[in-house]
Amino acid sequence: MSDSPRTTDPSAEQIRTVLDGRWGEVRQQMRADPDFPVAVPNLELGLEEHRARTLELCRTLAHGDFVLGAVPPEQGGTGELGRAITGLEMLGHGDLSVMVKAGVQFGLFGGALSNLGTTRHHETYLHDALRLELPGAYAMTETGHGSDVQTLLTTATYDPETDELVVHSPSPAARKDYIGGAARDARMAAVFAQLVVGDEHHGVHCVLVPLRDDGGDALPGVTITDCGPKMGLRGVDNGRLLFDHVRVPRENLLDRFGSIDDAGHYSSSIESVNRRFFTMVGTLVRGRITVGAAAGAAARNALTIAVRYGLARTQFHYPDGVHEVAILDYRGHQRKLLPRLARSYALALAQNALTARLHDITVGEETGENAQRELEARAAGLKAVTTWHATDTIQAAREACGGAGYMSANRFTDLKADTDVFATFEGDNTVLLQLVAKGMLTDYKQDFADLDTTGAIMFGARQLTTSVIEHTIGGSIIQRLLSGAPGRDGDEALRDRGGQLALFEDREAHLTESLAMRLRRAGDDETDSFTVFNDAQDHLLEAARAHMDRVVLEAFVTAVDEAAQGPGRDLLEKVCDLYVLSTVEENRAWYLEHGRLSAGQAKGVIARVGELCDELRPHAATLVDAFAIPHEWLTTEMMADLAEF
Amino acid sequence: MSDSPRTTDPSAEQIRTVLDGRWGEVRQQMRADPDFPVAVPNLELGLEEHRARTLELCRTLAHGDFVLGAVPPEQGGTGELGRAITGLEMLGHGDLSVMVKAGVQFGLFGGALSNLGTTRHHETYLHDALRLELPGAYAMTETGHGSDVQTLLTTATYDPETDELVVHSPSPAARKDYIGGAARDARMAAVFAQLVVGDEHHGVHCVLVPLRDDGGDALPGVTITDCGPKMGLRGVDNGRLLFDHVRVPRENLLDRFGSIDDAGHYSSSIESVNRRFFTMVGTLVRGRITVGAAAGAAARNALTIAVRYGLARTQFHYPDGVHEVAILDYRGHQRKLLPRLARSYALALAQNALTARLHDITVGEETGENAQRELEARAAGLKAVTTWHATDTIQAAREACGGAGYMSANRFTDLKADTDVFATFEGDNTVLLQLVAKGMLTDYKQDFADLDTTGAIMFGARQLTTSVIEHTIGGSIIQRLLSGAPGRDGDEALRDRGGQLALFEDREAHLTESLAMRLRRAGDDETDSFTVFNDAQDHLLEAARAHMDRVVLEAFVTAVDEAAQGPGRDLLEKVCDLYVLSTVEENRAWYLEHGRLSAGQAKGVIARVGELCDELRPHAATLVDAFAIPHEWLTTEMMADLAEF
Repeated sequence: MSDSPRTTDPSAEQIRTVLDGRWGEVRQQMRADPDFPVAVPNLELGLEEHRARTLELCRTLAHGDFVLGAVPPEQGGTGELGRAITGLEMLGHGDLSVMVKAGVQFGLFGGALSNLGTTRHHETYLHDALRLELPGAYAMTETGHGSDVQTLLTTATYDPETDELVVHSPSPAARKDYIGGAARDARMAAVFAQLVVGDEHHGVHCVLVPLRDDGGDALPGVTITDCGPKMGLRGVDNGRLLFDHVRVPRENLLDRFGSIDDAGHYSSSIESVNRRFFTMVGTLVRGRITVGAAAGAAARNALTIAVRYGLARTQFHYPDGVHEVAILDYRGHQRKLLPRLARSYALALAQNALTARLHDITVGEETGENAQRELEARAAGLKAVTTWHATDTIQAAREACGGAGYMSANRFTDLKADTDVFATFEGDNTVLLQLVAKGMLTDYKQDFADLDTTGAIMFGARQLTTSVIEHTIGGSIIQRLLSGAPGRDGDEALRDRGGQLALFEDREAHLTESLAMRLRRAGDDETDSFTVFNDAQDHLLEAARAHMDRVVLEAFVTAVDEAAQGPGRDLLEKVCDLYVLSTVEENRAWYLEHGRLSAGQAKGVIARVGELCDELRPHAATLVDAFAIPHEWLTTEMMADLAEF
Repeated sequence: MSDSPRTTDPSAEQIRTVLDGRWGEVRQQMRADPDFPVAVPNLELGLEEHRARTLELCRTLAHGDFVLGAVPPEQGGTGELGRAITGLEMLGHGDLSVMVKAGVQFGLFGGALSNLGTTRHHETYLHDALRLELPGAYAMTETGHGSDVQTLLTTATYDPETDELVVHSPSPAARKDYIGGAARDARMAAVFAQLVVGDEHHGVHCVLVPLRDDGGDALPGVTITDCGPKMGLRGVDNGRLLFDHVRVPRENLLDRFGSIDDAGHYSSSIESVNRRFFTMVGTLVRGRITVGAAAGAAARNALTIAVRYGLARTQFHYPDGVHEVAILDYRGHQRKLLPRLARSYALALAQNALTARLHDITVGEETGENAQRELEARAAGLKAVTTWHATDTIQAAREACGGAGYMSANRFTDLKADTDVFATFEGDNTVLLQLVAKGMLTDYKQDFADLDTTGAIMFGARQLTTSVIEHTIGGSIIQRLLSGAPGRDGDEALRDRGGQLALFEDREAHLTESLAMRLRRAGDDETDSFTVFNDAQDHLLEAARAHMDRVVLEAFVTAVDEAAQGPGRDLLEKVCDLYVLSTVEENRAWYLEHGRLSAGQAKGVIARVGELCDELRPHAATLVDAFAIPHEWLTTEMMADLAEF
């Protein structure tokens, strides 16, 4: 038995093209390119060795062309953003330190220069950043403020005497923390700080601050410390920065959305401080999309390993006393892996749709602030559900491989440790789901940018009477299926794609409307709005999850609908059924409590999940082969061991 | 703010005594003893350094007296088994490599000598094993067979010519794998092998095989390889063993349950091969109890860290715009930590009851094979639910600390990585829950030892008509509460302790009886028994979990009932309510499907969990202080950081 049975299975090949999506050709190139730096991590490297290797692999990337996709042609890039995001997703199959370090350098540091800077920043720094000749850092998070970026403490005060900005950390809580690149490589940081001009505070802005001289020593006034060992991502040199009245020229302000003129006057095209803030941090959207994408790739690694192991590994005999049972033949084992496999499919297809939407909005095929806000909400939500899915799936896959799964040679050590932080960086998942809820209540129509998240949620709740479900992806397909749905009767609904869609929509709409009703009580008594909001927080998070379930299902349905007829498509339909049924099964208490399913129907859902596991079991190898993860990216010792038996 | 606010809070002190249980005095001694080797792991040690340090710490243990508790006085020990188990549990607060290596040396290797050997083995080896002068290994698992020990491949063939046993690995799948101590330290292994005498196979027996000479080199015929780096437990030197016709004297057979006489004839006091096998592996019960106990301790570490962080860390402002919100004041955060805290309480108290029962059965206060089988089932079940709880809780606690939780200085790195394997070693959790189900169906009354697990389950299913719930722990207390219960009406039941107990019992009984009914169909068609069993596997696992929920609740209720009146006890009652309500909430789909709760009542359960979180929030510090984990066992960098703000 081979570790990577690359089949010529036509179903696998058809499914691969569906999963690969719009940038499938790019994926195929990367899979075949020996220089594409997907590397199995070597966990026995020392911290410094691992960091050095990670930097080298990022340099390989910088010499390729796909990172140029992050930047539009007028700034010297190619503007092929979808290609760039897809490349980072593919890095998710390898050493995630490389993916994260590349994301910091090209996506966050490069992205800040590109999106928050103006021509002089593009001309002076952007080329060097993309070629990794100017290693950079993105210094947003502080020890005292992570999620609450708006109240961070670092200040950048304009000094008209010298025409400089004075960057300063006023307290230990203002220390920039967990900053990728800070500990070792970065020469310059994009520092987020409260901008003060004269007596006026203009809110958070981004300022370029040189960190190190050519010899690598910290510049005067900059104190750099090393975060030291982390759970994973050892190749990323996270560090801490303290600024003691560090002076930089006025030009170092990334001033696309707020600038200081020669006379020392501040001006901005965006009047509201809040709206300006949300516009600036809107650049985070790419980072979130990338992290979600890479988490999905890591989960597919884990499932590929565990499913192949489950097919090859036997334990206990059939009643005949002769043949041993392949462990994937046990229902308990199927239930551990196959619903998660179905969800991985769903999330991968939703990720493709999101990447495409980011691309289209960025290159201007889609326009409008509404589309941008909706993209931000979807990026936040998909990042949250995919990273949690990755944590859960990698754990289940590890356990599905028993003791072998615990050996580092079998990859779960790095998969688990490296992806763990995804749930809390680039936006804490719980906070991100609140962003999703904000979008659901305001429907992106309201001018909520003047309110913080809680304010926007309360505001939206007061306005909303009936929630409107928008079908951003595959609108006409979804509408057609919904129109043909056999009503809300559970039995029928569960068998029909349109009925399934309606079931998901119904849950989202009811959760949203009842949430709005709950929160509206806050209108009566302003002083207690925190308590009202807080009491409803789990309801709010559930509404956001229901929203994401629906959005993900629509992406799945659309991708299958657009696929050519064939055995691969038939199999995808069944995988989609398992995604639907296992999601309903998880949430069946809700459906029962709200009269959407009878007790008998709910039990039927459980039984149907079991049947679907049984029906998909013979196709399990095909379903992981379709992920098309090259052999050399997934070598494990345990499969070689089993092959010897 | 201090990292470890050891309060003089009378509630915390009262609760501590309840949690500490029967061997509370031992715990207090260990907490105060600077030589008790609870050490914060140093994750930057190289593999060999970590192994050396772990061995040294185990030597410290070997010089203390608590390890002698593992062995009865007639074999040179103290017989204080409860004390020994409690000591290993306390090691769970520190570097788990020490706990695991100690467990292998004293519990498994020493346990095999003590329980499977006879006087000559006790006299020759036991003292040296307990003093760690004879480092040993417990070589059961093979690369090809982990859970299915009964069909392992290594053979021990008696050679009458030389009066020796020939130990041999007939294939690569027969390789002993993941064997703690094998890679570096062990001089001798207790090897499980199929005993062959003449033409007869007598099933799995245990043989002592020397591994290394005094210089540490492998002896002739023994091939030792190193498993290399693992996800965690780097201090444990797991290795692999292959035997090429290795000859040992006949005396090396641990022959308490099966021996070869001077004439070369095999005999056993247990006629049935199956029953003999289950008797021998019954010694695993201590290992499982220890692993569950240590997993519980590790989860309490994680909760203590996360709760204290949640009280000190603020993020976002109250609507007043002035004060920042302590993150534990968010309902979402409370829901992440407090139900898990309540479950940790429940499991700790169930663990105490189990340890006490093991002790009493071992010293002979409780007797009978029935009690032994019931102990084995309970040990298997509690190990499964506690280790899964630990994995889940450590993950939630890590995420609750955001980016700080990802830094190794804040302890989650080792907590997560070290405990991960607990779910699959000392018995895979899924397989262990099947053992629990076996006990539920046969009620320990049937002579099922002649059947393997599946056989026993099918056999039991054919016999069972009405399941009988036995109240092994706190029987009279539970009976009294049940008698006073206000019937099965949900509203009343949920508010009354007796009603809650009845609700848990009802679920267990219904799941067990309906399982038996399903499986009984197999009686009609023997050839298809695997399919019938397999289709019902998730039902079976759910029944086992319901059983454990009930057993754990009874332990909680009993411990609270036995506590002195006072504010600590009042608080414990509320924690118990949260354990009950959050467990019902998790399983409310089942209660709805089976008409045990109405939709309105189920929604009421969700609301009540929220209220209980709110009511317990002011006592969160007390509840983790009561775990009484010494300051120096739990130092974290992040709390020192917060103290500086």
